[in-house]
Amino acid sequence: MRDVAAIVGIGHTEFSKNIGRPERTLAIEAITAALDDAGLTPADVDGTVKFTLENTMEVEIARNLGIPNLRYFGDVAYGGGAGCGAIGHAAMAIAAGMADCIVVWRARNRGSGGRPWAAKGNQVGGEMQWYLPFGLSRPVDQIAMLARRHMIEYGSTPEQLAAVATTFRAHAQNNPDAMMRAPMTVEDYFASRFVSEPLRLFDCCLESDGALAIVLTSAERARDLRKPPVLVRGFAQATGPDHTVMANYFTADPLESPGHYAARDLWRNAGMSPDEIDVVQVYDAFSPLVPISLEAYGFCKPGEGGPLAASGALRVDGGSLPCNTSGGSLSEAYVHGMNLIVEGVRQLRGTSVNQVDAQTCMVTSGNGVPTSALVLRKP
Amino acid sequence: MRDVAAIVGIGHTEFSKNIGRPERTLAIEAITAALDDAGLTPADVDGTVKFTLENTMEVEIARNLGIPNLRYFGDVAYGGGAGCGAIGHAAMAIAAGMADCIVVWRARNRGSGGRPWAAKGNQVGGEMQWYLPFGLSRPVDQIAMLARRHMIEYGSTPEQLAAVATTFRAHAQNNPDAMMRAPMTVEDYFASRFVSEPLRLFDCCLESDGALAIVLTSAERARDLRKPPVLVRGFAQATGPDHTVMANYFTADPLESPGHYAARDLWRNAGMSPDEIDVVQVYDAFSPLVPISLEAYGFCKPGEGGPLAASGALRVDGGSLPCNTSGGSLSEAYVHGMNLIVEGVRQLRGTSVNQVDAQTCMVTSGNGVPTSALVLRKP
Repeated sequence: MRDVAAIVGIGHTEFSKNIGRPERTLAIEAITAALDDAGLTPADVDGTVKFTLENTMEVEIARNLGIPNLRYFGDVAYGGGAGCGAIGHAAMAIAAGMADCIVVWRARNRGSGGRPWAAKGNQVGGEMQWYLPFGLSRPVDQIAMLARRHMIEYGSTPEQLAAVATTFRAHAQNNPDAMMRAPMTVEDYFASRFVSEPLRLFDCCLESDGALAIVLTSAERARDLRKPPVLVRGFAQATGPDHTVMANYFTADPLESPGHYAARDLWRNAGMSPDEIDVVQVYDAFSPLVPISLEAYGFCKPGEGGPLAASGALRVDGGSLPCNTSGGSLSEAYVHGMNLIVEGVRQLRGTSVNQVDAQTCMVTSGNGVPTSALVLRKP
Repeated sequence: MRDVAAIVGIGHTEFSKNIGRPERTLAIEAITAALDDAGLTPADVDGTVKFTLENTMEVEIARNLGIPNLRYFGDVAYGGGAGCGAIGHAAMAIAAGMADCIVVWRARNRGSGGRPWAAKGNQVGGEMQWYLPFGLSRPVDQIAMLARRHMIEYGSTPEQLAAVATTFRAHAQNNPDAMMRAPMTVEDYFASRFVSEPLRLFDCCLESDGALAIVLTSAERARDLRKPPVLVRGFAQATGPDHTVMANYFTADPLESPGHYAARDLWRNAGMSPDEIDVVQVYDAFSPLVPISLEAYGFCKPGEGGPLAASGALRVDGGSLPCNTSGGSLSEAYVHGMNLIVEGVRQLRGTSVNQVDAQTCMVTSGNGVPTSALVLRKP
């Protein structure tokens, strides 16, 4: 499957709170922009992959856009864990000849759709019934437990989380699409309130409205399209053993995240290793996921993710491993990680507002849940 | 992708009303049975594909079974349209090297889960808001509209639908797992009440509780397992243009079903034609879907599906195109078509209770919705 499929179009709406348009409309806008970016039309599309979270069905999208027939359609579950997997499934379907041109999208309107974690009744079912009564309610509470464990096991510090948050905020300064562009110092970080100790306000992503879309086709066809293609070198998904969303507390080591398992397959599938990666986009719904994921994917040893972030390595201005170069979920927007994939494409096209010298990019999806990851590269 | 993946295990619970166990438990039972059938264990499993309808998440299944890691997981949407697509996605993932051993399952407990179409509030969203106020409420109402259209366009008759229902009931006589084994004559059929004219009670599938699971691996590995492998020769999915679930009324010809589009890809992907198919399992949530689908997949011309059924062609005792040999959704059980796929496997293993001489089998999924289909064959 290596390098058989390519990303040829990217598009998105503005990112905002209370965007004022339905998710369906946002999805159509983003997909239209991505097709235009590729120099393609809805008549070229014959497949879709979406998040199971998505509220708009494929046939509604297809009918509204005028897509003649979907020969391939599928979903990937687990919210923020799904993004890279959705791209991977699309690449696989193209490689298998099941479709020629696949659209992946994610549209959110939390202003109208509510926050599911903030609207719980007196009774909950499923897995949540086992941990909600003990206070593991919001995603931030669950990730806070992992962050605390990381501090206990490895001595990682709040200052390291501050480095993650301030680095990404600095990247967002140059990004006109970013929702959080106000400068943020380490002092600002420490002045922000706790949301779920040890996590502060600035450790948490934004709740954003907006949509993004990505268009894939075969590497061969990609050569003739409007923009430089970005090849899908490899992808992987993983749950790991005994997983529980999100705190992973059934495992002997909750920090042995799904990303650890995805990493093994990712590097094998891509035929590459972390030292061949020039830039990374790491899922950052909460800042601790960045060091935890950099460790999982082998960019440093367990416990070294925090010091790596604190060293300045993640910065676009001279860092050895530029990370979340558009500001990430923490400062650009939170759209379940789709914006991280789009920024990965921009870096390999050479069109990022924080352009670094990059031939290869790793993108990861949410690592508190069953997850996925991608290696993208220039042809 | 042809013949690269194989079905190596099948399993299911009993089928009943009010089965008395949660869907999660049913899923575990069916998967355990399917793995045992294959001579595999949960430790061998590294992927899952499920219906988006499924209420149990992969990680719950994996944790309860002891599956060490899921390297591939995905969903297929559109209820009864999903089954063959789920098998196809699994085959594709195996062919692409993304997983070695994939489980597909479907578990239903409508007794505890309710009937979504029977529990609508005063306000509905999504597409349903456009047709529910006009009485297109239940699936049977939507399919009744297609059936009436088929009668108007082609002169098909209630007697032809009676032939479908009585043929499948006859097949169920020999199936100890079938829920509806009482003999049914044409007179019995016509004595049954209308549910949504022109559809009578015996044109409608059962509402069943139960679960089925299917295990796939590579054709190469399949050779060493417990049971004769059944190869996935080809699969296809399709929505067709301007589709609306289920009545398809935005199109110039609502009878140009998603199956028409899936058929084109199915025969191309399989490199075969309908005259090379020995036995078929056709999604029969409602009897009119059988002639409509047989026409769509090219087993007869448009309008000839009803006469074909009335000719006795679908019978296991001497019919030229034995169909739904276990009794189908109408008389075995309704589990969103997963039982049709399992019966297809039994026919090619030579273990059906109504065994016919078959080297090849076509299975179709729900054709009132975005759909899918499979060609299975003996090695």
